[in-house]
Amino acid sequence: MILPVSLGDRSYEVRVERGCLRRAGESMNLDRRVLIVTDEGVPAEYAEAVAAACREAVLVTVPQGEGSKSLATLEELLLTMLRHGFTRSDAVCAVGGGVPGDLAGFAAACFMRGIDFYNVPTTVLAQVDSSVGGKTAVNLGGVKNIVGAFHQPRAVLIDADTLSTLSQRDVSAGLAEAVKMGLIADAALFALFEREDPMAHIEEIIFAALREKARVVASDEREQGLRKCLNFGHTVGHGIESAAAGALRHGECVAIGMLPMCAPALRPRLRAVLERLHLPTSCHYDPDAVLDAALHDKKAGAGGVDCVLVDAPGAFRLEKLTPEQLRARIVEVLEP
Amino acid sequence: MILPVSLGDRSYEVRVERGCLRRAGESMNLDRRVLIVTDEGVPAEYAEAVAAACREAVLVTVPQGEGSKSLATLEELLLTMLRHGFTRSDAVCAVGGGVPGDLAGFAAACFMRGIDFYNVPTTVLAQVDSSVGGKTAVNLGGVKNIVGAFHQPRAVLIDADTLSTLSQRDVSAGLAEAVKMGLIADAALFALFEREDPMAHIEEIIFAALREKARVVASDEREQGLRKCLNFGHTVGHGIESAAAGALRHGECVAIGMLPMCAPALRPRLRAVLERLHLPTSCHYDPDAVLDAALHDKKAGAGGVDCVLVDAPGAFRLEKLTPEQLRARIVEVLEP
Repeated sequence: MILPVSLGDRSYEVRVERGCLRRAGESMNLDRRVLIVTDEGVPAEYAEAVAAACREAVLVTVPQGEGSKSLATLEELLLTMLRHGFTRSDAVCAVGGGVPGDLAGFAAACFMRGIDFYNVPTTVLAQVDSSVGGKTAVNLGGVKNIVGAFHQPRAVLIDADTLSTLSQRDVSAGLAEAVKMGLIADAALFALFEREDPMAHIEEIIFAALREKARVVASDEREQGLRKCLNFGHTVGHGIESAAAGALRHGECVAIGMLPMCAPALRPRLRAVLERLHLPTSCHYDPDAVLDAALHDKKAGAGGVDCVLVDAPGAFRLEKLTPEQLRARIVEVLEP
Repeated sequence: MILPVSLGDRSYEVRVERGCLRRAGESMNLDRRVLIVTDEGVPAEYAEAVAAACREAVLVTVPQGEGSKSLATLEELLLTMLRHGFTRSDAVCAVGGGVPGDLAGFAAACFMRGIDFYNVPTTVLAQVDSSVGGKTAVNLGGVKNIVGAFHQPRAVLIDADTLSTLSQRDVSAGLAEAVKMGLIADAALFALFEREDPMAHIEEIIFAALREKARVVASDEREQGLRKCLNFGHTVGHGIESAAAGALRHGECVAIGMLPMCAPALRPRLRAVLERLHLPTSCHYDPDAVLDAALHDKKAGAGGVDCVLVDAPGAFRLEKLTPEQLRARIVEVLEP
């Protein structure tokens, strides 16, 4: 299946096809120098499959985890490109989850003010969400994704066969973002989660989630307006993620964070979906700590904080909540 | 005088007006947090004039010179913004020459994936050339401008009164880029250099040079084609700059580098203009060292290296020169 992402002269295609990793040269122009960035948690054979298709591959494996999304690691990648004589005509390719994707994407964005970037996501989270949209970044001073660029890939290659090596927990956490996409934009996708075994329909889920995301990104590439709907579940989710200090996955926090932003009538349905996915539906952190972290970097202007709310699957609305209203919703998903 | 730069939703205005530095708040939205970046070579009163117009100014003065265009200094600026709670709605403003402009512009480009940037150039080189075009960058591994972004300013403020504190040598080196602009795009501008005292017409020169540059940038923002004409004089110029190892200014190298790229009949006219500006017209470096450095990062593909040539003021043509042809031209401006 091919999904076109329409962004004028930055348009590109997402290929969702089992086995496409072994045919990487068909979807990407690898007849040049290519910096391939992967991490230690990704089976080495995936990056090697891409490398085998390159005229001149330079393979860099960074440590697993957010720690690699740093300016120091970025500098290493840029120096590696310089050492190997990379020019504007060469390319960067990420193979793995969001960490190699965000890091390598930013390296491609700023090397010589922008060279071609390819993304080969191999986790559920990256396949259903982060590989499309052009957001690249590293962390700084304890703040996630604070330094980066909008830099669209030239192509995204999604091979669902790579998901077989993931833990159940990583699969579930990744699927939380696809559930989110169903809730805000695609009732049929949400219904699929209510009825079917998601892994038996994973390519359909990936395609549907990315199709909706591509539509949002095409109309608001640089997050000036509509794209904010993708933050559904993320305001409270970020607050929980900060309070959890590493104990919960991003997708697990988003799962919990969506509940209070649904209309009360929808919550039992969402809770049932999350339970079938073995995702958490509540946690036990201090509500004020969650609220403080949720409000961080948000300007609670006149009328409150912009929040994304869902009344019924397939559509969202924006509403300003005061910090007090937000706190009341947070309390509903916190165990006493 | 107001020069509009047409770049769709990234369009902006350049104001060329004596005294406008004291009225900075009229041209820029400073009713927010503003990181002002200047360097130790710039009279402190310029940055202070901008700071006085800001709701909340954070002033950073970096050491003078290319050494400040580093990832380390970039990180300092970004951490300073984080410490002061900068958000997407805040801004960065450069006050000075190309070093604060390139550095602060890149900080604005990548903080939260891009916030507003203003440029207040106070050197001739920055006023006639580098402040318009959206190129931002730092250096890495000994390679100039290798890491950066295209990030257009929201406004550029040019106050020619700031030029009174510059040395004659810096004025002349800056004017070399305006001579270049006349040669490739504006015969009347070149004629002005042949007839008049440039400092008596400096605002007219700034406006004409930026008008032509804005036209080129508007049709080729990301340097895919036409914008390469701005490299007139720069291929050989970069080679000389590298061989000179700091002994010559960038503009002085461009001055010398333009001569061999002009038709022989035009060279005496250009030489006369450069001599009136007290700019060098030859140097004494090893031709092979200059050639090697000139070819660095250029792919001498089939048919040779793309070069910009001028037969008569006001128009250019592109021609591929073989390394041998380029060397023969270089020898003409090297003293034995």
